[in-house]
Amino acid sequence: MEKDYSQLYSQRAREMKASEIRELLKLTQMTDIISFAGGLPSPDAFPIDIVNNICQELIVKDGKLALQYAATEGVTKLREVLADRMNRQGMDITHRNVLVTTGAQQGLDLIGKTFLDPGDIVVLGAPTYLGGTNAFAAYMAKMESIPLDENGMNPDVLDEKLHHLHRHGKNPKLLYVVPTFQNPSGVTMPENRRRQLLEIAYNYDLLVVEDNPYSELRYEGDNIPSIMSLDTEEKVIYLGTCSKILAPGLRVAWTVAPKPILNKLVITKQSTDLCSSTFCQYVAYEYIAQGYLDKHIEVIKALYKKKRDIMLASLEKYFPEGTTWTKPLGGMFLWVTLPEYIDTGQMVERAIENKVAYVIGSAFHADRNGINTMRLNFTYSSDEFIEEGIKRLADTIKAEIEAHEKRTRESPYKPDKDGIITGV
Amino acid sequence: MEKDYSQLYSQRAREMKASEIRELLKLTQMTDIISFAGGLPSPDAFPIDIVNNICQELIVKDGKLALQYAATEGVTKLREVLADRMNRQGMDITHRNVLVTTGAQQGLDLIGKTFLDPGDIVVLGAPTYLGGTNAFAAYMAKMESIPLDENGMNPDVLDEKLHHLHRHGKNPKLLYVVPTFQNPSGVTMPENRRRQLLEIAYNYDLLVVEDNPYSELRYEGDNIPSIMSLDTEEKVIYLGTCSKILAPGLRVAWTVAPKPILNKLVITKQSTDLCSSTFCQYVAYEYIAQGYLDKHIEVIKALYKKKRDIMLASLEKYFPEGTTWTKPLGGMFLWVTLPEYIDTGQMVERAIENKVAYVIGSAFHADRNGINTMRLNFTYSSDEFIEEGIKRLADTIKAEIEAHEKRTRESPYKPDKDGIITGV
Repeated sequence: MEKDYSQLYSQRAREMKASEIRELLKLTQMTDIISFAGGLPSPDAFPIDIVNNICQELIVKDGKLALQYAATEGVTKLREVLADRMNRQGMDITHRNVLVTTGAQQGLDLIGKTFLDPGDIVVLGAPTYLGGTNAFAAYMAKMESIPLDENGMNPDVLDEKLHHLHRHGKNPKLLYVVPTFQNPSGVTMPENRRRQLLEIAYNYDLLVVEDNPYSELRYEGDNIPSIMSLDTEEKVIYLGTCSKILAPGLRVAWTVAPKPILNKLVITKQSTDLCSSTFCQYVAYEYIAQGYLDKHIEVIKALYKKKRDIMLASLEKYFPEGTTWTKPLGGMFLWVTLPEYIDTGQMVERAIENKVAYVIGSAFHADRNGINTMRLNFTYSSDEFIEEGIKRLADTIKAEIEAHEKRTRESPYKPDKDGIITGV
Repeated sequence: MEKDYSQLYSQRAREMKASEIRELLKLTQMTDIISFAGGLPSPDAFPIDIVNNICQELIVKDGKLALQYAATEGVTKLREVLADRMNRQGMDITHRNVLVTTGAQQGLDLIGKTFLDPGDIVVLGAPTYLGGTNAFAAYMAKMESIPLDENGMNPDVLDEKLHHLHRHGKNPKLLYVVPTFQNPSGVTMPENRRRQLLEIAYNYDLLVVEDNPYSELRYEGDNIPSIMSLDTEEKVIYLGTCSKILAPGLRVAWTVAPKPILNKLVITKQSTDLCSSTFCQYVAYEYIAQGYLDKHIEVIKALYKKKRDIMLASLEKYFPEGTTWTKPLGGMFLWVTLPEYIDTGQMVERAIENKVAYVIGSAFHADRNGINTMRLNFTYSSDEFIEEGIKRLADTIKAEIEAHEKRTRESPYKPDKDGIITGV
């Protein structure tokens, strides 16, 4: 019998649950399922030959440095090229505003660790990136959700919520947003909303955490400035990553912050892992400095745009009436809303029987709403499988709709909200 | 003027200080100082050509996997070779007991995050590894120190301390030890002490955290079983790392734990960084699986044994009467104790003027004792600089002793403990 250590766990650990996404991923990896569940880039997008060349040069040239500990802040020359890149996208920073992290997930963890005491409030979208919620929940923060629309977070709704919280003596510390090609919904906040959001953050003395892994993967439309580049009051912490534009297996990402905050994050990182992989930082540096990144992003975009188009066309072709979905202009995900009576959490078993997988929408809601929604990833599956997968999923949904209609026809009784039969 | 964000920081972040070691390291890297301060392996110990060959093969063979996200637990085949290796060292585990982490420092962080609520007690040595103390302090734990002797932690003293704490209603959760070639002192706990320590841990229902980065770097004497390999009650969490036997820049380390604890640590890691660098895990796997690790450890040991011998001989030759030091049988550090009236924290400025650096002993004491002690690293400096550095350090110490003797001769008054002149 396994020993029970539960009395020894911290309160946070007792409350933690395994990410539903990562558990689901394991399942889908073991079978012949067409998976729209993961948040994985396509391996076809990895610049394998370039990385090979870089490694060979790098080990000979800088091996002793690349295999040694790095400064906690990260390798200086990598921080410099990242700062340059951010400045070309409208920011005004130096490498001293940049901290290299082990994935942007570590940036979220360090922000949680640096800012959140138990009971502190984080305001975030519903839906929002599950890894953000989990990172903050690990520090016992409370989440307050703002429902999103097709333009992301609505500043008026946000303002109302903050007003309400303040009236009840609650002062949130962080506002967490994924403003561009959001994970999970694919929606993007327009510039005017970003400006309004900043004004609200200034009014309520909130720090904005702008998580921006996808903005360089734009397949149509014009670029929109990052929230940080619009900020005039140093109230934004920004997270960028190489995971979606180079390769996630390097785990090279970066956090941009006002200097006092950055210094605090560095101290927090010291006790967390001393430094991120020096070797991977050197690979990322060479990749960017030698000009491969910009060229290769075009390759990735062409690849993913095609996949997105196939998925959108397949949805149009196969999905039944009563279902809707977002039409993202970039990124990796889109968001499907089914009739209200369908619980995607219950349907997932049938989907997997039909050899197709998605992530249930409620996983992305801190308030566990969104039970009739799902996230679909369009970047990982090969082109030919996307149409087939959407067809399988459409069949699964149609069966749910038919079963529901059959139940409705057969029973003159209607269950009320609590599921209790209340009679004719 | 810089903005002040301090009212937004979490309580833990307000209490965190930058590691004195890492701050000192920055200083010593900028000058022509001979530094015994860092905990760095010698770059001469890095198997650069082997890593180069491995990378070339690996990217061609497994590039798509090595650049993708990994499971949070780590790459399975790496976990398997690590489990095999641990079993050859007397453990009885499978890969399901192994979690790959970003440096052993992340193992410490995940243990803190998983077990420690504010006010929980961690028992540890005085001195002990600063990164351990900092990792646990970040979760607002309280430290209780057990003074070490030349055989590490004395079980009788530990038992007495635990008895005392229990009588006052305090039940520590973790016992943190670096039993072999300890950082910072270089001392090693003999097997009988390890067995006694386990009995005490069983009696008081304590989890033992065995941090073991150095045991494979033994320059003389017989191997001593790890505490985990002696454990019969599944009460030990073990931390191993490639940092000292391959290269720290890969940040590949591992935590071994009973399965329920390992599963909990995995969930904790999910929200912390999703996974460690897949690419570096593949490099480490190939390095171990192809049999390079065992061969190369012999190269490192020969290199470091010579450095240790040079440092010990130089200490013997140059250090003044009244100073003592440990004679480690392995590892990277030794520990110097100066006359009680010398404060190594005040002396460090003079040492740096004399172009030599060490880490002040009090940094390794959670209770800030040990002000007349220092840690010396013997692995990083080149052979020819070790003797010169020790000579400079000896001169610095001699100057302190002479100044003290001069003060004592000139003044018939003696300051009492509080530094107040109390008269003849």
